[in-house]
Order: sequence, then structure tokens, then C-alpha cells
Amino acid sequence: MQASELQNKFERIRANKWFEAFVISVIVISALLVGAKTYELPAGMSSVTLFLDWFISAFFLTEITIRFLAEKRKRYFFKSFWNWFDTLIVIISLIPADDTELALIARLVRVFRVLRMISIIPELRILLVSLVKALPQLGYVMLLMFIIFYIYAAVGSTLFETINPVLWGDITISMLTLFRIMTFEDWTDVMYETQEVYSLSWIFYLTFIFFTAFAFLNMVIGIVVNVMERENEKARAEKEAAILEEQIAQGHVEPTLHDVLKELRELRAQVASQSNKEYVSKAD
Amino acid sequence: MQASELQNKFERIRANKWFEAFVISVIVISALLVGAKTYELPAGMSSVTLFLDWFISAFFLTEITIRFLAEKRKRYFFKSFWNWFDTLIVIISLIPADDTELALIARLVRVFRVLRMISIIPELRILLVSLVKALPQLGYVMLLMFIIFYIYAAVGSTLFETINPVLWGDITISMLTLFRIMTFEDWTDVMYETQEVYSLSWIFYLTFIFFTAFAFLNMVIGIVVNVMERENEKARAEKEAAILEEQIAQGHVEPTLHDVLKELRELRAQVASQSNKEYVSKAD
Amino acid sequence: MQASELQNKFERIRANKWFEAFVISVIVISALLVGAKTYELPAGMSSVTLFLDWFISAFFLTEITIRFLAEKRKRYFFKSFWNWFDTLIVIISLIPADDTELALIARLVRVFRVLRMISIIPELRILLVSLVKALPQLGYVMLLMFIIFYIYAAVGSTLFETINPVLWGDITISMLTLFRIMTFEDWTDVMYETQEVYSLSWIFYLTFIFFTAFAFLNMVIGIVVNVMERENEKARAEKEAAILEEQIAQGHVEPTLHDVLKELRELRAQVASQSNKEYVSKAD
Amino acid sequence: MQASELQNKFERIRANKWFEAFVISVIVISALLVGAKTYELPAGMSSVTLFLDWFISAFFLTEITIRFLAEKRKRYFFKSFWNWFDTLIVIISLIPADDTELALIARLVRVFRVLRMISIIPELRILLVSLVKALPQLGYVMLLMFIIFYIYAAVGSTLFETINPVLWGDITISMLTLFRIMTFEDWTDVMYETQEVYSLSWIFYLTFIFFTAFAFLNMVIGIVVNVMERENEKARAEKEAAILEEQIAQGHVEPTLHDVLKELRELRAQVASQSNKEYVSKAD
Repeated sequence: MQASELQNKFERIRANKWFEAFVISVIVISALLVGAKTYELPAGMSSVTLFLDWFISAFFLTEITIRFLAEKRKRYFFKSFWNWFDTLIVIISLIPADDTELALIARLVRVFRVLRMISIIPELRILLVSLVKALPQLGYVMLLMFIIFYIYAAVGSTLFETINPVLWGDITISMLTLFRIMTFEDWTDVMYETQEVYSLSWIFYLTFIFFTAFAFLNMVIGIVVNVMERENEKARAEKEAAILEEQIAQGHVEPTLHDVLKELRELRAQVASQSNKEYVSKAD
Repeated sequence: MQASELQNKFERIRANKWFEAFVISVIVISALLVGAKTYELPAGMSSVTLFLDWFISAFFLTEITIRFLAEKRKRYFFKSFWNWFDTLIVIISLIPADDTELALIARLVRVFRVLRMISIIPELRILLVSLVKALPQLGYVMLLMFIIFYIYAAVGSTLFETINPVLWGDITISMLTLFRIMTFEDWTDVMYETQEVYSLSWIFYLTFIFFTAFAFLNMVIGIVVNVMERENEKARAEKEAAILEEQIAQGHVEPTLHDVLKELRELRAQVASQSNKEYVSKAD
Repeated sequence: MQASELQNKFERIRANKWFEAFVISVIVISALLVGAKTYELPAGMSSVTLFLDWFISAFFLTEITIRFLAEKRKRYFFKSFWNWFDTLIVIISLIPADDTELALIARLVRVFRVLRMISIIPELRILLVSLVKALPQLGYVMLLMFIIFYIYAAVGSTLFETINPVLWGDITISMLTLFRIMTFEDWTDVMYETQEVYSLSWIFYLTFIFFTAFAFLNMVIGIVVNVMERENEKARAEKEAAILEEQIAQGHVEPTLHDVLKELRELRAQVASQSNKEYVSKAD
Repeated sequence: MQASELQNKFERIRANKWFEAFVISVIVISALLVGAKTYELPAGMSSVTLFLDWFISAFFLTEITIRFLAEKRKRYFFKSFWNWFDTLIVIISLIPADDTELALIARLVRVFRVLRMISIIPELRILLVSLVKALPQLGYVMLLMFIIFYIYAAVGSTLFETINPVLWGDITISMLTLFRIMTFEDWTDVMYETQEVYSLSWIFYLTFIFFTAFAFLNMVIGIVVNVMERENEKARAEKEAAILEEQIAQGHVEPTLHDVLKELRELRAQVASQSNKEYVSKAD
């Protein structure tokens, strides 16, 4: 059939080494273009960047189309998160942007084309997925941390709002200020200001720092222990696989104490039966 | 008995899924209300928040009463830290607060109702308990750290009081300043100021930073090693339990070298007795 | 002998629970006194602190004399670092200090009496010793770090001295500035200043941060690995001790494959000898 | 041959303990000289430093020549990175520098002679090599981090350039600003400035901090796990080597279940053959 032939052709293109290298080159060029645009460019360059922008958009559209057509079962194409991701980036960057307001957004969208670097390199994809997978395991520690932030922000906002509304105006601003304190960024300036009114307010800051530092430490240790366990599990599985492989290669399995006991019992039975036979033979 | 019937009824209410979900909802609403109050609210809202405050107080009182009445042995109710905790929060937030001074305290107490989020979610309760349990193990490192702080604060207060009484006025203020130095927050500003009088005072700051950083590092490593050991212990216990379970499932236990030796000795005895029998039979 | 009798008496005093508790109390009081002196004390208190100072000095002198006299072999007394430490603190704080210049030093020496807290509590002594013992293992990493600091300080002093002599005046000041940069304390202020002259000087700062952060990380990991190994070693030793103890309690040792083979070979010899006996008996 | 004799002589010099100690002394003196020059030196000293500079250059040239001549196979000399390193430093510091511009460069080159400290001490060489070897394993995490920096720098430069061109002028400057934010150095000042225009820009900063902190944490854990594995591998190898050595020392190898089964099967064969012999003897 003609459709199938065309599909095979697209599949060959997609699997082609040169095609893949070319795709990566275009992604790198698009990233460099994004960087170049932040510099004051000479007048003559504007038409070049305009052409490159157009070319990259067209190329990405072509590439995603080829990848879609090369897929045997179209449903599978949309089961991959990364296909959705690539398609979305390509479609959004096709939106024409002449208006000055939209021009800014269009430029920002083009920046995200750099993210295709992650989707094209399998190692980065694995890394990102493993990072994202690690997050929910920390769910309860993060919830606890949020509650700590919320309570301290509510207390801070209640007590210090009149002192400095820029830092303690409402609960959202207070949480931002607390995050700043957690990073130790000029936290004493914030404290000295409130200490002039409430001289004991250092208790507020020190307990907050202790609680968040402790919760944060717990989070980090949680991740470390998790990673260690996964590594140990992997190492053990590899070791067992190696032992099994070796045994298969040697054509036998390591004897166990079961085998020894079985052999011993057979020996006893043999000795016993022999003894009987002797009796029988003597009885003759 | 009527009392017992009533108690069973309360127990059913307490165990009811819908009741539990409703309690959590009210706690979340009380948390949101605490947050909302930090914003400038429109005039019409004040009666709504007043009603909600009243409703939440009443509901919490009802809930704690139900939980108390549902308890078979009343003494057990007060053996749980979390029951004490909840009761205390509820009772304090019942105190009427019309005076402006007390109004602030009343608002602060309502903030702590957010802590009920921790007492209602078992995972957070476990997390907090494990955090608190980890502290005493670090007792001596923290005592050592306190002694370091105390000595440096006494020295700092003695030497630098005349230079800047705001930072080195007495031993308490000096310890706060040292905590600031430990967080690296504008510590060079503090140092440069004292270096103008005592040009060698950088020795004071650098040794302090080294000692506390080292002690802190030791503390962190202490926690990590503890957690690791606990995890390893757990993993080993799980593994042993799994092996035992498997053996029970297979209906036998793994033979040991003891079993092999026992079997062998019985065999030798059998061979020996047989040999004797033969003598006997020959003697016939 | 009378001397021996006196010594036994001192030994009993030293070992007395109440005496030990009293020593700790006096140390705590001397620490509190050091703290109290940093506050503005009412006029009437000065004679009290003077008396307390005199009393603590006298008591410490008495205590160290008792400990010295209680020691059977006087040479052993001076083999302990902590005895040297205590004696030194006591002797120095006996020096009369009426002059205003010396008064400051006398006050500082009294601060170090707080260190006796460490020498009196065995757990703190062990902790401090283990901290000090961990240092030399890190010798080469610290030497490497010093070389990095030295080279960057020399380069910084050569290039930036004319820009800001306060920060880059000579190699010692430059190393202090680099330590400040390592703690990230307003490091961009230092960088922006030099960037105005040498616009590429960010390379200097960033490479320095990378090198020191990496070396520091290595140091921390070195300590962690060390501690872990020590803990594992300890755990293994404990496990082996427990197994041995159990075996001794059970009155036997776990059989090995050697035992099994020995038993088997004896059985074969038995079977063989029997078979010979049969031949012999048959030959009759 | 004369050439060979001369070479042996140089080899003896190179291996001489005193020669080695003298080389280290000269390196230390050259390092101290570098440090001393950063101070305001008295007029009389300038001729001394000039002589020392000349002497060190001459000595280093002599030393490298001896090491080159002592090498049996000249090709091997240039296969060592450290020989290249030393030769380069010596040659560069020979360039005469009278011009004021070059004088600065000449002084800088002399600073790098301190690096010879690393090439002369084997432990530091091993440490540095192991640090450099650890880097490529972190390749993908660092690439991911660079992409995060690049995207945020492009977005920051696009949005905030008009607000503060000093911090967000182009993509390079923006990346430097982001590095500053990652070190938490006055990051709120940067944020508050942009928040005045884009009030939601805190999302930009907080997500950046989360991403980089997470990626950084991952990197650190990667190194820790690597080091741990290497240590465990080493410990296991050592243990196995110790067991093997002990067995060789004891003149035998630990019996295995294979040996036991073999012995058992021989016993059965023996019993069986005996039984046959009996039949045969009876048949007589």
C-alpha cells in the first residue's frame, strides 16, 4: 500500500543519523539565536534573525510532522509526554506576533524552544523524570514545611504589619519575607526593625530558622536515604544476576544444604537396604 | 446501660468517614480564615468572619467533647499528648477578647488552630514525633555548641562592648550577634568595625566560624548516620521476616549444618549397629 | 604510713558523689558570673562578684590540689591533657590584676574557666577529642585549600591592590577577603568594584568559588565516609561479639563445613575398616 | 658509554633525598617571595627579591633539565602531564619583563610557580586528579543546570533589561546575576526592583532557586553515592584479599558444599562396591 510505503520512508528519515544530528544543530542554533537577541545587534542582522526565526519554526513543524507520520499507531504518539511537549512548543511559536505587547510573549515562547534540548537528549530526559519522581516522596515534609510557613506568616503579619507593611502586609507577602529569612538574606535587618517594637521578636526568627532548617535537613536526608536504597537495591540485583549468569555458564547450580541432606538420606536408605539384603542372603 | 449506649453512639460518630472529612474541612477553613484576616477585608465581610470564628470555636468544642465521650476509659484520653494539645487550643480560643490588647492575643491564638492540621493528619504527627525524638540524641553536641557560643559571647562582650553596644552590649545580645555571624549574614560588617580597634579580631571571628561549622557538621552527620542505621535495621528486619514467611509458606525451615551433622552421626551409629548385628548373626 | 592514709582520704573525697556535684555547681556558678558581669550590675553587687571570684579561685585551687594528692603515682597526673588544662586555667586566674590593662586580661581568663565544663563532663571530652582526631585525616585537602587561597590571594593582591587596598592590600588581607567571598557575604559588591577596571574579573571570582566549594564538598564527604566506616566497623564488631557470646552461652560453636567433612571421612574410614573386618571374619 | 654514565649520575641526583628536600625548599621560598611582594617592602629589599627571582628561575630551569636528562626514554618525559606543567611554568617565567605592562603579567606568572607545590607532593597530585576525574560523571547534571541558567537568563534579559541593564543587560550578565541569586547574595534586592514593574516576578526567582537547589542537591548526592560505592568496592576487595591470603597462609582453602557432596558420593560408591564384594565373597 502507498500509505505504508510513505510511512516506512518517514520512519527511515526519523531513524537517520544525519537527520538526528541536523535536528540537534537546529535546536542549538535556536538556543544561540535566543541568546544573541539579548545583545544590541547591528541593523543588518535583524533580517537574518527574522529569517532564522522563520526557518526554525518551519523546520520544527516539518520535524514534528515527520515524527507523527513515522509513528505506526497514531494513538501512541500522543501517549508520550515529550511529544505533547514538543508539539505544544512548535504550535505556540507559530502564532504571528506583530503587536508590541505580543512581541514580548512571542520572544518568551521562543526561549522555551531551548527546552527541546532536554526532550532530544535521552539522558537529560531520564534525569528530569527522576527529579520529578523524587518530589512526591517528600510530600508530607513539604506539607509540614508549608504549615510552618503559614503559621509564622500569619503570626508575623498579625504582629508586624504596622511596623513594615512592605514586608509583613498580608500572608502572601509575609511568606515571601519568611522565605528570604530562610535563605539568611539580610534577615537581621528584618529582625532589628521589629525588635525596636517587640524586643523579644528574636524568638520568632530563631525558632523559625530552627524549624525550617530542621525540616529542610530532614528532606535532604530523605532524598539521600532514598537514592542510597535504590543504588543498593540495584547493586544487589546486579550481583545476583552475575552469580546466576556464572552458574548457567558453568552448567550447574551451587549445591545447597538441601542437596547434601538428600544425598545423606539416600545413603542411609542404601545402607539400610543392604543390611536387609545381607540378612536375606544369610537366611538363604 | 444508657451511658454505654450513648458512648457507642459517640464512638460511631467519631469513626464516621463523613464526620472526619467535615472536621478536616473546618480546620482548613479556620486556616484560610486566619490567612484572609491578614488582608484588608471589605466592610461587609467582618460579620462573616465573626460568625465563622464563632462557628469554628463551637464546632471544635463539640468535636473535642464527642471525642472525649467516645473514649471508653476517660483516663486514656488524657494520656495522649495530642488530646491535651487539641483541648488546650480549643479552650484558649474560647476566652472572650473585646479589649484591644487582648484582641491581638486572641487573633494569635486562632492562628495556632492551624496546628490542628498536624494533629489530625497521622503522617504529619509521626513526622513531628520523629523530629522531636531525634533531638535528645544530639544533646551533647548542642551542649558543646552552647558552651562555644557562651564563651565567645563573653569574650566578645568583654572586648567589643565599648565599640558597639547594640551588637555586643551584654551576653544575650552577643549570642544573638554570634548566631548572625554563624549564618554569614553581613558578618564582615561586624568584623570590620571591631578590626578598627583590635586589628587581630579576625581571629575571633574565623575561629568561631570554624568551631560552629565543625560542630554543626558533626550534628548533621550524627543525624544522617542515625537515620541510615535505622533504615538498615528496618531493611534487615524486613528481609528476615520475608525469609521466615517464605519458609513457613513452604512448610519447612532451611536446613543448617547442625542438621547435616546430626544426620551423619545417625548414619555412623546405623553403620556401627549393623556391623555389630552382622557379628552377632555370624556368631550364630 | 601516714602519707598513704592521707592519700586514701583524698581519694575518697575525689570519688565522693557530693563532692563531684559541688564541683560542677561551682563551675556553673563561675560561668553564670562571667555572663552576669557583661550586664550593668547595681553598685551593691560589685563586692558580691568580687567575693565570688575569690571563692571560685580558692575552690578551684583546693579541688586541683585534692585531685593531685589523690593520685597514687604523681607522674600519671601530668600525663593527662585535661589535668594540664585545668591546672593552667587555675594558675592563670590566680594572677592578681589591679591595673586597668591587666583587668581586661584577667576578665578574659576567667571566661575560659567555663571551658572546665568540658573537662568535667566525660561525654563532652570524648566529643571534643573525636573532633580534634578527625582533623589530621583532612590534612591534605586543607593543604590544597590553603594553596588555592594563597594563589588567588597573590593574584588578587597583584591585580586589585590599586582598586581597593582595604580589601586587597596585601596577601593576608586578600585571604581574609577571599574567605568572605567563600561565605558568599556581599561577594558581588567586591566583584562589581573590580569589574569596573577588569571587566573579565568575574572569571577570578567564579573559578575561586567553584574550586573552594568543590574542595570543601570533598572535605565534608571525606568526614562522612570516615564516620560511616567507623560506624560500620563498630556495628560489625558488635555483631560478631554478640554471635560469639551467644555461642559461649549455648556451650558450643557453630559447626563448619570442616566439621562435616571430618565426620564424613571418619564414616568412610569406619565403613572401610568394617568391610575389612568382614573379610577377616569370613577368612576365619 | 659516556652518555649513559652521565644519565646515571643525573638519575642519582634526582633520587637523592637532599636534592628533593632542597627543591621543596626553593618552591616554598618562591611561594613566600610571591606573598612578600604584596607587602610594601623597604627599598633595600628590592635587590634581594630581584636576586631571589633570578635564582629561583635558574634553579627551576636546572632542576627540570636534570629531571629531563635523568629520564631513560625521553619520550616518557613528555607523556606525564605534570612534566608538561612544570616545563611550561619554568619557560614562561624566563621571559624577560622590563615593560610596565608585561611586569604585571610576569608577576602573575611567578604566582603560578606556587602550583609546583601540587606537582611536587604526590598526595596533592592524587587528590587533584581524583577531583578532576569526578567532574565528567556529573556531566549531564551540569548540562541540565546550564540549560536552566540559559533559559532563565534569556527570560530575565527579555523581561527585566529595561528595568536594570546593569544586572539584566544581555544573556551573559543575566547568567552572572542568576549565579548571584543562587548564592542568595542580596537576591531580594534584585527581586524587589523587578517586582515594582512585574509584581509576579517572585515566581521567576523562587522557581529558579528551587530548580537550581534541586539540581545542585542531585549533583552533591551523585558525588556522595559515587564515593560511597568506590569505598564499599575497595572495602570488599580488601576483605576478599585478606581471606585469600589467610587461606594461602594456612595452606588450604575453605571447603565448599561441592567438596562435601563429592565426599558423600564417594562414600555411597564405596558402600555400594563393598556390598557387591560381599555378594561376590558369599558367592564363593
